[in-house]
Amino acid sequence: MRIRVINPNTSASMTATIEASAKAAAAPGTIIEAVTPTMGPASIEGHYDEALAVPGVLTEVARGVADGVDGFVLACFGDPGMDAARELAAGRPVIGIAQAAMHLAALAARGFAVVTTLSRTAGRAWDLARTYGFADRCREVLACEVPVLAVDSAEDMVADLAREALTHDGVEAIVLGCAGMAEMAARVSAKTGAPVIDGVGAGVGLVETMVRNGVRGSARGEYAAPLPKRYVGLLEPFTVS
Amino acid sequence: MRIRVINPNTSASMTATIEASAKAAAAPGTIIEAVTPTMGPASIEGHYDEALAVPGVLTEVARGVADGVDGFVLACFGDPGMDAARELAAGRPVIGIAQAAMHLAALAARGFAVVTTLSRTAGRAWDLARTYGFADRCREVLACEVPVLAVDSAEDMVADLAREALTHDGVEAIVLGCAGMAEMAARVSAKTGAPVIDGVGAGVGLVETMVRNGVRGSARGEYAAPLPKRYVGLLEPFTVS
Amino acid sequence: MRIRVINPNTSASMTATIEASAKAAAAPGTIIEAVTPTMGPASIEGHYDEALAVPGVLTEVARGVADGVDGFVLACFGDPGMDAARELAAGRPVIGIAQAAMHLAALAARGFAVVTTLSRTAGRAWDLARTYGFADRCREVLACEVPVLAVDSAEDMVADLAREALTHDGVEAIVLGCAGMAEMAARVSAKTGAPVIDGVGAGVGLVETMVRNGVRGSARGEYAAPLPKRYVGLLEPFTVS
Amino acid sequence: MRIRVINPNTSASMTATIEASAKAAAAPGTIIEAVTPTMGPASIEGHYDEALAVPGVLTEVARGVADGVDGFVLACFGDPGMDAARELAAGRPVIGIAQAAMHLAALAARGFAVVTTLSRTAGRAWDLARTYGFADRCREVLACEVPVLAVDSAEDMVADLAREALTHDGVEAIVLGCAGMAEMAARVSAKTGAPVIDGVGAGVGLVETMVRNGVRGSARGEYAAPLPKRYVGLLEPFTVS
Amino acid sequence: MRIRVINPNTSASMTATIEASAKAAAAPGTIIEAVTPTMGPASIEGHYDEALAVPGVLTEVARGVADGVDGFVLACFGDPGMDAARELAAGRPVIGIAQAAMHLAALAARGFAVVTTLSRTAGRAWDLARTYGFADRCREVLACEVPVLAVDSAEDMVADLAREALTHDGVEAIVLGCAGMAEMAARVSAKTGAPVIDGVGAGVGLVETMVRNGVRGSARGEYAAPLPKRYVGLLEPFTVS
Amino acid sequence: MRIRVINPNTSASMTATIEASAKAAAAPGTIIEAVTPTMGPASIEGHYDEALAVPGVLTEVARGVADGVDGFVLACFGDPGMDAARELAAGRPVIGIAQAAMHLAALAARGFAVVTTLSRTAGRAWDLARTYGFADRCREVLACEVPVLAVDSAEDMVADLAREALTHDGVEAIVLGCAGMAEMAARVSAKTGAPVIDGVGAGVGLVETMVRNGVRGSARGEYAAPLPKRYVGLLEPFTVS
Repeated sequence: MRIRVINPNTSASMTATIEASAKAAAAPGTIIEAVTPTMGPASIEGHYDEALAVPGVLTEVARGVADGVDGFVLACFGDPGMDAARELAAGRPVIGIAQAAMHLAALAARGFAVVTTLSRTAGRAWDLARTYGFADRCREVLACEVPVLAVDSAEDMVADLAREALTHDGVEAIVLGCAGMAEMAARVSAKTGAPVIDGVGAGVGLVETMVRNGVRGSARGEYAAPLPKRYVGLLEPFTVS
Repeated sequence: MRIRVINPNTSASMTATIEASAKAAAAPGTIIEAVTPTMGPASIEGHYDEALAVPGVLTEVARGVADGVDGFVLACFGDPGMDAARELAAGRPVIGIAQAAMHLAALAARGFAVVTTLSRTAGRAWDLARTYGFADRCREVLACEVPVLAVDSAEDMVADLAREALTHDGVEAIVLGCAGMAEMAARVSAKTGAPVIDGVGAGVGLVETMVRNGVRGSARGEYAAPLPKRYVGLLEPFTVS
Repeated sequence: MRIRVINPNTSASMTATIEASAKAAAAPGTIIEAVTPTMGPASIEGHYDEALAVPGVLTEVARGVADGVDGFVLACFGDPGMDAARELAAGRPVIGIAQAAMHLAALAARGFAVVTTLSRTAGRAWDLARTYGFADRCREVLACEVPVLAVDSAEDMVADLAREALTHDGVEAIVLGCAGMAEMAARVSAKTGAPVIDGVGAGVGLVETMVRNGVRGSARGEYAAPLPKRYVGLLEPFTVS
Repeated sequence: MRIRVINPNTSASMTATIEASAKAAAAPGTIIEAVTPTMGPASIEGHYDEALAVPGVLTEVARGVADGVDGFVLACFGDPGMDAARELAAGRPVIGIAQAAMHLAALAARGFAVVTTLSRTAGRAWDLARTYGFADRCREVLACEVPVLAVDSAEDMVADLAREALTHDGVEAIVLGCAGMAEMAARVSAKTGAPVIDGVGAGVGLVETMVRNGVRGSARGEYAAPLPKRYVGLLEPFTVS
Repeated sequence: MRIRVINPNTSASMTATIEASAKAAAAPGTIIEAVTPTMGPASIEGHYDEALAVPGVLTEVARGVADGVDGFVLACFGDPGMDAARELAAGRPVIGIAQAAMHLAALAARGFAVVTTLSRTAGRAWDLARTYGFADRCREVLACEVPVLAVDSAEDMVADLAREALTHDGVEAIVLGCAGMAEMAARVSAKTGAPVIDGVGAGVGLVETMVRNGVRGSARGEYAAPLPKRYVGLLEPFTVS
Repeated sequence: MRIRVINPNTSASMTATIEASAKAAAAPGTIIEAVTPTMGPASIEGHYDEALAVPGVLTEVARGVADGVDGFVLACFGDPGMDAARELAAGRPVIGIAQAAMHLAALAARGFAVVTTLSRTAGRAWDLARTYGFADRCREVLACEVPVLAVDSAEDMVADLAREALTHDGVEAIVLGCAGMAEMAARVSAKTGAPVIDGVGAGVGLVETMVRNGVRGSARGEYAAPLPKRYVGLLEPFTVS
């Protein structure tokens, strides 16, 4: 089984972190291929960044389909472009790491808190929790206010926020709200004594589960292939024929 | 008051339709400026098209801010890029036409149906209804299965679907689910005897109301200006400094 | 366009405040007519007061219809008698100021707090938030515990409560929870740096938007004219024939 | 124990029906006192009627408090004036028959349908279901389109609608949506083989349960006594001092 | 009328407390029969205990049906085995005390808090609140951390927690979260000045109300009698033939 | 990795079916151990059966913990005893097949239908959908009315119901509502062209994902080990010391 893990931002160092976490969580025999888009922002720290990361993500999804991979993980906590990616993926699983982490947290605990980078991204986390059915289980979104590209050095702050969240009513698990935090899950879990969930590893497992169970997304209706049409300007390369 | 109405697709004929509807609904003294982006898809008929319409929309929002307009209407029923646009708009109102039409429908009726173009877009309509607080009031999304760029000739089918929807329990108003339907609102209302709401005109009125009441969106936190960072590849022009 | 703004209580000084706010928010060419009922309580500070304000409101709605006005704003934050008023209004828009303010707040911000007069009215505010679809967006209802007829002197307390609410998670806009606070919206907004919404001005804009878009409420089914029947006792004047 | 059952309309024949049902359901030793207000509409068939029934209801509540009764049932399916009545009742239970019937139906079945008189009242039934927590359990509201004062002769139509509703997914009990239907509950239950719930009898049992358990409503905060103030015009008799 | 009140645990002292509360709340002429199962745990303080209390409860329900009782109250706050018991009860009312107390609290107040024994049982209380429709009205679940069999001596702690809960926004009534607290309801109400609800007495009143109104649960579909089948091992006595 | 898959009923033929499905879905290196309890009902077709299956399930969980397995799948669509099992499992993942199948369906599609055996079990399916956060995504529960132990011969009826469900608005995937249907998932998917999800295979993948990501359930608070206490009668063997 081959899973393509797409880092939606264009920073190769982040891709390396993501790749390591994905490989650590993969089942025997699963091939992890982590990729960096050739266009888009260096990091994703808001709606503008996220919106403009999507074209690069879509290019990588199209490439993955051409390469015959079995499924995709979108490794940014905003799950950027997931619906559009599914239109390209022809039924192959496409899982975002917020989606993956929240599903796993809901299996592990009655309620969870998200610990993320910047508070300006909390609104997106809440929107996703509601979309995925976890509005009740997501109890808090806390931010360490460290930029995405520096978050690998913020493990102590993340652990402190996790500890604080776990004292609140109904919070029994921690969801890490940034792909850049992926490698700290085990250590923060050890420090806090609670389940700590990284969406990259979670996403790999969920794609594996879907593939092994033969569960493809629908490729009809909403997620059918994009209709042929002309794109103009900078985006002309995206024309569908 | 100057309101910029952005057609998120790149078809100038659609912009003309939108402009006419916006002007018809505007208050005395309001200047309507309808614009067409210079990049993106000819029409928006799915998540892929919508995702790739966003960069063009954002360029127009940035231009509008530079031009000193008072607010924006995003004239595609998926409300593409609305959150990202708000980061650029520095507190100026940015209203999507799905948002506008659903708000007006909720003021006019206990429940409404959306009549849209293609059924593949219904999922997006449901997502927006839930996001805006109208999951209970939106009772149905019906599609005439006519492409966006031909929908101006589908008025009879739209009226038939509206009539059918109005026989269902709790449907008392019709929301037109595509900017291309804007000019048919009054006629479909006359044919069906029910309130029929076009989001373009609704959006103009809501932006006017916000401006006249001095209600700006927040320009702190979630909707603060995008953080400075490098964009690469095709999207390098979007670099924030 | 003529909009009748009904002060549901019988205090003419409050009507003057309301009229000023409505006129300040109206579009060019809109005629604002603020009226005071001839029966009912001097102020509305609970369910009993509100229930007994309704007959006076309904008399004014009937008069407005006879006078040929285009729509109504009910200028008390409990939106008293709104459903009954719609039965009389034959499809003309009837908007309550809680409804109007909450809609505008939902357009401007992800979450809002209501700052009101007496805490005994908070239950009603919560009921309305849920009815209008904003149970998730209304995060708090705070009371300054100043009586309605004295609230125009409580601006500092209102601003303090607003400032406090804005420090809470997810509160990004303030809804003023009493028509008597209408004139302080701009100043409280300046003091707090956040959007502050007065329902009177909001209501005027929403009625204008509905009228200009040709969106009438339904005058069939639930909101058809009251059925002919005899009223007895004190209420005999309300007999419908 | 003395329970005052208030018929919110002014038709004495309806009061007689209500009284019979209340007495049939009361426990040994409970004294039922059914009363008819001296002002208001002959029947309640919409929001206008309901709003104008409230002053008469409140007069009867005040009288009941003065007479030392233990609790109140409001015997119209719109539960008119319930919140205002609680302000007068100083903690004595005040239960509306829609509230009572929906609670009992929720205890008896996973889902229920309301069979009511006129479809124009269905909106009110849905609002109450949501307010009381039963939005999920209330599956349908069906109307026989017979006026309230003639509904005692519509038993066959009610039974037919009940039978139809019981074929729908998740409907396992029937709530009678009008006090005028109270006496037909047992017969419609026999005809359909399903639980059929009359709110008048249900309300008596719930008031008895509250009284016997010493559970008073709160008489502080929201339901504290109305504040002293002047009422003018027709409603001057309602002045609180 | 005969009501069987089943103590789901096997501690006879708890049964005595429950019986006293049930008798105090019963209407004239109601015969209360409190029983203790012959198998199961000495107390119920978690999901394991609760699951294993169910066989004993079911034996008592079967016995009660054979004895011709009119209805059942399950006197443990987790409402253990209620759905299974309804399959045996052939339409006779079966009410759990959490269900009963939450219904009565919802009739008495806009919001309530549960005060229970151990915090490990709070999850179950929240699940039940959601199932019964009261997710919004249940604002808090507080635990005194006293074991079930010692809770009769914890009245002061219960009163303190109740007092604390009542200072929180929207909490206006207290639900006692353990059958062992039944006898302290009146005293805690006196100490706090708020409605305090014991589910045992509430359950008796609700069963009486259902019986007197002729409202039986459905004995078709979901709650039809268990299908005949063989049980093996320890549970062979439960074989249905 | 060793996963114990517990068939909650006592029919060994069903265990064989379950084991085959679990093995087919397992990752390389995962050891599947399917077991049959020594006490309980031959099949689970209602709340009574389910309640009485739980003691046998718990015995198997305790045995699995003693044997050092890594996690558990409970292979009955009612997820019997899941909370109690978690108290015994000391943090090892315990996943029910309804839970697993609904999670996977939510990842694959916007909405799904459950196709189950007997309609009397539909209520349980709806309760679980709501508990797990999928009340909106679960659109229908359809029953083929074939007993659990004969369902392996009902593939054509299951496929027909699936096809019917897929014509309904918003149904894009099928969840098989009985462990006895596990082996037909691929064939029904082929026949209908839609994702068809068997909870047994889904559960194996989700347990694997949790184990590989180091995500343990909480073993504190709600899911701490059962407290020591005496069990009497038939259930004495369950005494905790």
